[in-house]
Amino acid sequence: MVKEKPKQESISPLTGKQYTIPETIDDKAGIESFCDLHPGKKVVVVQGLGFVGSVMSLVVANALTEEYAVIGIDLPTPFSYWKIQSINEGAFPVIADDPKIEQFYQKARKKKNLYATCDPHAYSKADIVIVDINLDVKKQSNNNGHLEDYSVDLSPFKKAITAIGTSCKPDVLVLVETTVPPGTSQKIVRPILEECLKERGLATDKLKVGHSYERVMPGPKYVDSIQNFYRVYAGTDETSADATEKFLRTVISTDEYPLTRLGNTQATEMAKVLENSYRAMNIAFMVEWSRFAEEAGVNIYEVVNAIRMRPTHKNLMLPGLGVGGYCLTKDPLLASWARMNLFGSEEPLEQSETGVHINDQMPVFAFQYLQSQYTSSLNGKKVLLLGVSYLNDVGDTRFTPVQGIYEQLIGAGCEVTLHDPHVMYWEEKRTRVNNNLDELLKQPYDLVIVTTGHKDYRNNPVLINKLADQQPGFIYDTIGILTDDEINKLKSKHIVKVIGRGDL
Amino acid sequence: MVKEKPKQESISPLTGKQYTIPETIDDKAGIESFCDLHPGKKVVVVQGLGFVGSVMSLVVANALTEEYAVIGIDLPTPFSYWKIQSINEGAFPVIADDPKIEQFYQKARKKKNLYATCDPHAYSKADIVIVDINLDVKKQSNNNGHLEDYSVDLSPFKKAITAIGTSCKPDVLVLVETTVPPGTSQKIVRPILEECLKERGLATDKLKVGHSYERVMPGPKYVDSIQNFYRVYAGTDETSADATEKFLRTVISTDEYPLTRLGNTQATEMAKVLENSYRAMNIAFMVEWSRFAEEAGVNIYEVVNAIRMRPTHKNLMLPGLGVGGYCLTKDPLLASWARMNLFGSEEPLEQSETGVHINDQMPVFAFQYLQSQYTSSLNGKKVLLLGVSYLNDVGDTRFTPVQGIYEQLIGAGCEVTLHDPHVMYWEEKRTRVNNNLDELLKQPYDLVIVTTGHKDYRNNPVLINKLADQQPGFIYDTIGILTDDEINKLKSKHIVKVIGRGDL
Repeated sequence: MVKEKPKQESISPLTGKQYTIPETIDDKAGIESFCDLHPGKKVVVVQGLGFVGSVMSLVVANALTEEYAVIGIDLPTPFSYWKIQSINEGAFPVIADDPKIEQFYQKARKKKNLYATCDPHAYSKADIVIVDINLDVKKQSNNNGHLEDYSVDLSPFKKAITAIGTSCKPDVLVLVETTVPPGTSQKIVRPILEECLKERGLATDKLKVGHSYERVMPGPKYVDSIQNFYRVYAGTDETSADATEKFLRTVISTDEYPLTRLGNTQATEMAKVLENSYRAMNIAFMVEWSRFAEEAGVNIYEVVNAIRMRPTHKNLMLPGLGVGGYCLTKDPLLASWARMNLFGSEEPLEQSETGVHINDQMPVFAFQYLQSQYTSSLNGKKVLLLGVSYLNDVGDTRFTPVQGIYEQLIGAGCEVTLHDPHVMYWEEKRTRVNNNLDELLKQPYDLVIVTTGHKDYRNNPVLINKLADQQPGFIYDTIGILTDDEINKLKSKHIVKVIGRGDL
Repeated sequence: MVKEKPKQESISPLTGKQYTIPETIDDKAGIESFCDLHPGKKVVVVQGLGFVGSVMSLVVANALTEEYAVIGIDLPTPFSYWKIQSINEGAFPVIADDPKIEQFYQKARKKKNLYATCDPHAYSKADIVIVDINLDVKKQSNNNGHLEDYSVDLSPFKKAITAIGTSCKPDVLVLVETTVPPGTSQKIVRPILEECLKERGLATDKLKVGHSYERVMPGPKYVDSIQNFYRVYAGTDETSADATEKFLRTVISTDEYPLTRLGNTQATEMAKVLENSYRAMNIAFMVEWSRFAEEAGVNIYEVVNAIRMRPTHKNLMLPGLGVGGYCLTKDPLLASWARMNLFGSEEPLEQSETGVHINDQMPVFAFQYLQSQYTSSLNGKKVLLLGVSYLNDVGDTRFTPVQGIYEQLIGAGCEVTLHDPHVMYWEEKRTRVNNNLDELLKQPYDLVIVTTGHKDYRNNPVLINKLADQQPGFIYDTIGILTDDEINKLKSKHIVKVIGRGDL
């Protein structure tokens, strides 16, 4: 007797609506009738409907100088299937502060030029495929957050490229936007696609593979971070570079934000991970120095502000909880991995790897510091955590460093209440987040910990007054957003500690 | 029979003049009669007449809003004695492109308010002592330039502070400008001075110790880098901070470049080493990525220029030969040492230490890269090295990374000719440097290596034409100053390699 596979469900976290994933995927008819609506238009397939791909599909559907028929495609998994159904039903699967998202979506709905599917038949219709899928790094860290090893498994990425090659037209332009190890477009994507075409008995000389990385910033300028921002691009050959440029000019305001063509796709792939490694390293630098300041009785914030007067040091960052998000936590490792695995170097990118593991250790340090300052036991203590998002004024919890502190507080027996104005549900921890701070502050807490720099917590006298009125407790600012005046006010009743304020 | 100690000589590298160092130092009469010339004026003693102290003494002698009597003091060693004699005889011991140096010196000569000595009796006359002596880090590195260990020996520094304490007035202001491990003013300088005063039976409550770091940049803006630049300062107590501020206002254009007072001297000491660690780390970052670019067939220069379009990444540096000079090569280590040795941390500043050892390895890599590209043996080859200074358009050879390449070329049996427009004599290597490029280029070379970014080598069509006319050889640009057009012109005859130009 064959055991019947249970039906898989995919639930929209936005509406709670439940979708049953069909066992066999056949959306040929849907794809064909969508394309029939748009004769003569080029078909653009966006592969991957995550934070980048979903919004990229909106930007292409509302291209500046050409009309495209856009098909978004993702896998029929519990994580993605609801997105496909949502797009087709009229509810865009991304919540953001940017009103342009809904405007662009409604315009596309009106023009009927955006469709979503999980049937790879879509690739056979594509003039252009934009690759916006994930490429992950697996980290192995010890209990102190110390990175001991990491690996890059390219197989899901290769499988996705193979899916394109199995159905695509021989003259398709495959435009990789995914952050990949340098060398990937030339050494992995193009060879896979050529191999597939050959197996299908087709010519490979018309195939075009380009790379152009996005600089998407989820938040109030979400759409603009694609449409109105600088782009760097390259092709695996001259024709590919030309085709990539031609396409980008139709979707990006290139008059205001000129395109930059680089010599080869290794260069553009490197530029992306270099950008993010640079940022991660600069954050790690301040993470380390804020700890030193703590030890040396120094206010690191006044030090940084004094140094920033120098034009050469304006970019010095302020300290914080380390990094979060999908990119800065892994891109330096992608780069280092590529150096050793795709280009045969025996040396890693040491500065970049060091940055990652300093950042990764910061939430552990933030908790250890709390333990050293909070003289009684944490067990059973009521804790209010202000902020779970990794980024100010945005609801994005991917790899948020708040998770490290949260888990350690839970592990120490604390009763943790979460607040975030932009996160209703913390997907990774499968837990509800309250967004009504007024209500939350009616209850007493032993500890209030500031973990994200949302503007709701910054220069907010109402919040400070309410905190000051709480029963005497411990207020812990892990990111230095409390001003001197606020600290002095709170100190009259509470113990106040700020990471990097060794002078307190 | 007592063996007679041979007389020590001190030779001016500027004039060749030879001075015999007296066996006993007694300049009481000289000091007293200098002070008698300036009744009612405050006496400022500048301790240390190196790159900072000598020019600082000029700036104080030409203070903006007060007239000081300035005494420069240094040790009676072969390295320093000639400087003291030179100052008093009318030849300022610093050669620089900055005409203000000579102007300031002549003004002070006219006012007769600058005197130099090596007699510690000077400290007894001082209202203010400015500490501008060196504080060095000893590095132990292996043959690959890999930093294996380092140490900080504070004893010469402590001895110098003791010399002040042995003679100074009890209400002196000792202003430390030396780059010191954070914690030094509070934990080392002040206690030594108080101890000395107590031993002399004097009160310690009027003693003032401040710290304010210089940001001196030898070169065409030498004087301005002291007089017209931002200053950060602090005191070991409130009175010291006030006295430091009052003094700085008289010598620095604080209207245009406001002073910043920090909470304590640990903070100002930290600010200085943080600034330099940040810079060293950013250089190391590009050193590593330029090597990766080399391996991956990427032009790192076009990558960096593409990224710099982002406002957040404008400070990204261009690659080079690593770092040189007195500060960036050691300050990150001073900081890390202080963290562990003065504040008891078990952890170093990892990001900063990593930066130092990546930078230190770069000259080794630059040579290894040459070996890998230069197919025949280097033994007996004629090499022209363009630039020995560590910095563009300045003649400063302290810890220049060119030394690493130079020594390896010599080790490989090359016959090396040195050119630098700003260096006539390379003190550390005790060798003459030619500054007549036209004449040098009349001879043929097997290899021409560009090692410093002087403007004489940049966008210089005459140089490029002469190089192009040389017998076919190997042109190696270690710092990326050749343009694409220049490379193409040279390539028609020569082999051309540029570090970080994997696309060539």
